[in-house]
Formats: sequence, structure tokens, C-alpha cells
Amino acid sequence: MGKKILKLDKPFEMRRGGVLHDVQIAYETWGDIGFCYDNAILIFTGLSPSAHAASSTDDPSPGWWEDMIGPGRPIDTRKFFVICINSLGSPFGSTSPASINPATGKTYRLTFPVLTVEDIARGGHEVARALGVRKLAAVVGPSLGGMTVLAYCALFPGAARSVVSISGAARSLPFSIALRSLQREIIRRDPLWRDGNYEPDSIPVSGMRLARKLGMITYRSAKEWALRFGRERASAERRAGDPFGIDFEVESYLENHAAKFTGQYDPNCYLYISRAMDLFDLADHGGSVAAALQRFDVERGLIMGVETDLLFPIEQQQELADGLAGNGREVTFARLPSLQGHDSFLVDMDRFRPIIADFLKSL
Amino acid sequence: MGKKILKLDKPFEMRRGGVLHDVQIAYETWGDIGFCYDNAILIFTGLSPSAHAASSTDDPSPGWWEDMIGPGRPIDTRKFFVICINSLGSPFGSTSPASINPATGKTYRLTFPVLTVEDIARGGHEVARALGVRKLAAVVGPSLGGMTVLAYCALFPGAARSVVSISGAARSLPFSIALRSLQREIIRRDPLWRDGNYEPDSIPVSGMRLARKLGMITYRSAKEWALRFGRERASAERRAGDPFGIDFEVESYLENHAAKFTGQYDPNCYLYISRAMDLFDLADHGGSVAAALQRFDVERGLIMGVETDLLFPIEQQQELADGLAGNGREVTFARLPSLQGHDSFLVDMDRFRPIIADFLKSL
Repeated sequence: MGKKILKLDKPFEMRRGGVLHDVQIAYETWGDIGFCYDNAILIFTGLSPSAHAASSTDDPSPGWWEDMIGPGRPIDTRKFFVICINSLGSPFGSTSPASINPATGKTYRLTFPVLTVEDIARGGHEVARALGVRKLAAVVGPSLGGMTVLAYCALFPGAARSVVSISGAARSLPFSIALRSLQREIIRRDPLWRDGNYEPDSIPVSGMRLARKLGMITYRSAKEWALRFGRERASAERRAGDPFGIDFEVESYLENHAAKFTGQYDPNCYLYISRAMDLFDLADHGGSVAAALQRFDVERGLIMGVETDLLFPIEQQQELADGLAGNGREVTFARLPSLQGHDSFLVDMDRFRPIIADFLKSL
Repeated sequence: MGKKILKLDKPFEMRRGGVLHDVQIAYETWGDIGFCYDNAILIFTGLSPSAHAASSTDDPSPGWWEDMIGPGRPIDTRKFFVICINSLGSPFGSTSPASINPATGKTYRLTFPVLTVEDIARGGHEVARALGVRKLAAVVGPSLGGMTVLAYCALFPGAARSVVSISGAARSLPFSIALRSLQREIIRRDPLWRDGNYEPDSIPVSGMRLARKLGMITYRSAKEWALRFGRERASAERRAGDPFGIDFEVESYLENHAAKFTGQYDPNCYLYISRAMDLFDLADHGGSVAAALQRFDVERGLIMGVETDLLFPIEQQQELADGLAGNGREVTFARLPSLQGHDSFLVDMDRFRPIIADFLKSL
């Protein structure tokens, strides 16, 4: 019912060193907690969304997973009490590099300690506990969220009965690391970044837009774009006079979307969360990915992935499904032929919805 | 035998408008022209190389295709007279945006007319004719060169008995266009680019390096990097103190290679040639790709491609092989499982050499 904030009164020790004080975690909830507190679903997000995963009476604007969450929807708010977490380090209400450090009265910026996926998972766990939930019905997340649910299960054995990891991975491959590293460098090379000390009215917009375009290219798939754009030329009025203006529809599409992005997202927050994705390695929790997965204290798992995903290739979800199987756990692996690449969970709803609905119905 | 220059005394009309005067095309040759002038092979290059494809007595430094060209090598200089062309628009000796416009005495920069792959093909054709060659034994090219040989066959029917297109395409897909468009924008957003009017001692190095890194990421394959780098950390002495320094070996690899690149290549030339790749469409020569290929007046064709190529997916080479078949032409299609993506023709020599050798031996 709209954005809420959990304020932690104890210091928050970061996994890679450093301590945060007066930490806040923003979240939203939908539905009602059951009498036994056994119907809660905790959702972690991808890199950029806020906790506003779906509309509510308090905030009727559509959420980032609007078609997935609500009464009668796959994550059914008539049955489940749904919590979505704004990641620690994200600028939408949770403590982040854009927050004021209470010790100095100044914005953290690059003095913020190294952020890890485990820290994000712990932020969500604090919210669930504060809401009185001892055991989640499910912990669910796509993309970065699909990594965060793995960290959650590794850090908090028994805290969730089931896990749903969508287009996630046990760790980042060097191809994905290289792309994210380049996105970060593009932002850091923007003269307006000023080593993280940009002015509020003069953020590195150019770097953010270029990084966003690179993200958009790699979040989708070559096949989808071949079908969608082909070699369509941009409409005449959009063609700029300069010799490197926009020629093709695909360029105009990227330009329009990149222009939308930048004002909303604090660049330093982007850098921290992006790097957390590179640093995450589930093998840190047991010596190997397989060992870490075998330790998971969950009854059931749903692993979903998409064949056209460049950033988190389908083999990485196969690895999760294979590693989670055994020990009496019931594991469902959904390998989807969606054309929209890594972003499919936001777009190809007709494929994703029934699988998530079936899994959650059977809980 | 070292770099030579062909100076054209007639005006060079560019395909998309504009006329160049006093055009120069740089090239190198190896081997001897036969008595019948029927043993010439014309090579077009990828985006960045010069005409120095192999070492020679005049220039003993290794060429960009050193393992492919020479006595006893697949392109055997004991048998063939080999010519490699520096593309029109490239800064290594041919007329380009970095050349002086004889009409003004100033560097062309962005006043250079729009460059097309067809213009590059014609530059090579002028060299072959000037050397007395009426009919080539083969026209050969990888990457951009693999497009240029198609333009060559479309523009000059009967000028080559056979065509070898390696990791090329009949046209660019929107995914590749988007990536190249982003590379160009990264360079153009570098404040030192100054709308193309950068100072010689102050070129947009940062933009060029970032564009180069993006190129390197997309020229190879995720599979290769997973095997090659895994999650290896950069060695201790390479780790910078700042919170966004280099953590992973793959980042250090990109940094080292990007640093090598920039001084050599004129940024405006890069922009022009990169855009030429986007604009090329073989369908301009006959209404459709299939119709254009059916018109080719060649006896034989060798089409090669690599399954891990992100920029020129294997389906695009399949399209060329299928389209070229028929009309009594003998077409060989080599679909290679190389791991090194688009760059494989420079790296996976053990796979490429025997196929090219066999094809040329049978000419």
C-alpha cells in the first residue's frame, strides 16, 4: 500500500567491510499477511526498478511488474502477502551512495562502502523480519533479483520455503562483466561525473545515456530486433542534418529510450549496484556453486531462463536447476524461447505468467 | 613489396553524392603477376587494418593476415599475385577524412562525402586495372572486406572468376547497427572530438578507447571468454585504489588492448567507415539480396562464417551461400565452430587456413 520505509536501529555491517548507520530500506506491500504469517512472498528487483512493482490504492501508477502482481494475477495478492524491496544502494528510498552519511552530514558518494548482492539480500531479510515473517512462502527475483534470491537462500537457511530465480545466475560471466565494466567506465569518463562529486543539477547525463543504450542493446536480442526493425529507416522528420545523425529506426528507438532514463537514476548508485553484480559469486557460500546450491534449505525451486539472453545465458540457469535438484527438493526448470533476451520477464508476459502462476498455486 | 600508392587523375564520384579529386589508393602486393595476368587475388580488409596484410622484403613487419599470405601459405604468393587494398576512407595512405582537400588546402574532416562500401570496392578495382589485371582469380575479404567483395561483384560483373567472403554479410542487422551507432556516438560525445575538428595532438582518445573496448567485447564470444578468463582476478599490482578500479582479468585485458589502439587510427575515418558498414545493403543491386547474388558473374564462391559471431551471425553467411548457389556456380559454405566470434579469421588460423588453401588450390 504505497512506499514504506524500515529504519534499522542497529549498525549494518557490510559484507566487504564498512558499517552503515541509520540504514533505511524502502519497500511496498500488497495483500494481507495471513493469520499464520505463512503466505508472504518477498520480491527482489533488477538493477534499476524501485519497490513499486505493482499499483496499489496508495500509488495507482503502474509498477514495473504490473501484469504479474495483483488480485487474480500470477503472484496473487488475494492469496499472498507480497513484499517488494528497494535494493540497498538504490536511490529510490533505501540507503545508498546518494544518501546523507549521518556521521558527516554529507552525501556518501564514493565513500559508500563496497556494495554486494548479499547486502541487498540482507536488507530484504530485515524487512521480512520486521513485518513478523519468519518463513517466506517464496523469495522471488528476476535478473539482479535472480542473483539476490540465491544470496538470500545461502545467507538465511530456512527463511524461505521456495525460491524463484528468473534470468539470474550463480555468478557473472566475463562477457557480462566486460559489458557492465564498460558501462561504468563510460559514466566515469563523462567529465561531469567529477569522480562522483557531480552537482545535483549537472549530473553526467551523456555518460548515463550511453550506458543506458549499451544496456538496452544487450538486454534484448539480435533476433528480436531483426524482426522488429529490420533495416527500417527513421522517419524523415527525425533525420538530423549532421553526417552522423540518425539513419535507422533502431537508432531512433535507442535515442528515445535513453533520453527517458537518466534523470531518475543517481549515477553513483548505478555504479555501485552494477559492480555488485560483477562481484557476486554463489561459490563464496560453500566453495563451489554446486555445494552452495546443495546447502539451500528450501523445499521447492523454480528456475526460469530465456534462450536469447546474452547477459545471463540459458546455461547459467541450467546450472542452477541442476545444482538445486536432489535432497528431496522439487525443482522446475523453465527454458523459454522468448525473443526479447534478458528483458523477456518484463515483456513476454504470456510465457512467464502461467509458469509462475502454476508454481505459486501449488505452494 | 611495401606500400604503393595509386594516384587517380580523374575525379572520383562517390556513390551517395560528392566528388573527390586527386584520389589516392594505397595498396601492397606480393608475388608476381603471371604472363597471362590471370593469377591475381585482390584482398579487401576489415574496418581497421592497413594494406599491410603480410610481411615483405620492403616491410618485414608482420601483417594483419601474416599466417594466411606468403610462399606456401594458403594464399600462396608463389602461385598468386596478391594485392591488398587500403580502403578509401581509411587513414593508412588512401584518401580519407584525414586527407587534405586539394580544393581548400584543409583537412576534409566532416566535409568528406558519405562513404559507402561500394566506393571502397571501386578503389580496389581502380588498383587492379592500373596493374593491368582484367580478370581476378579471386576477390577475397573478411568482415567489412567480406561485404566489400560482394559490392565488388555487384558493381563489376566479370571482373573476378571467384569470390571469397569471410564473416561478412549482405547487409547489417539492427543489432550490429545499434552497436556501431553507439560506438560512433561514444566518440562523438567525447568533448575532444569537437564536431570532428580535434587538434592533432588532442584527439578524442577516451572516446576511441571506449569504442574500441565495445568493439573487442562484440568481436569475440562469451564462450571464449568464459574459458579464457573465467572469474580470474587481475593480478595484485594491477588493482587500482579507487572503488571502480580493475577487479577482473577480463577488464585488464580490455584496458591493455584499448590503450594500444587509439593513436593509430584517425577518429573521423573510423566514424566514416563504421557508418559505411551500416549503410551497405546488397539488395540495392537488384531489388533483393537473392536477386543481387544471382546476378554475380563468378564461377565459384567460398562463403565462410563462424557460429559464435555476434555481429555477423552465421545465418547471414548461410544466406549468401544459398543465394549464390545455382546458375552453374560452384559454392562452398564453411560453417565453423570457432570460439573466437567475429575475430576468428584472425585467430583460429588452423580452421581457416586449410579451407582457404583448398579453395584456392582448386582454382
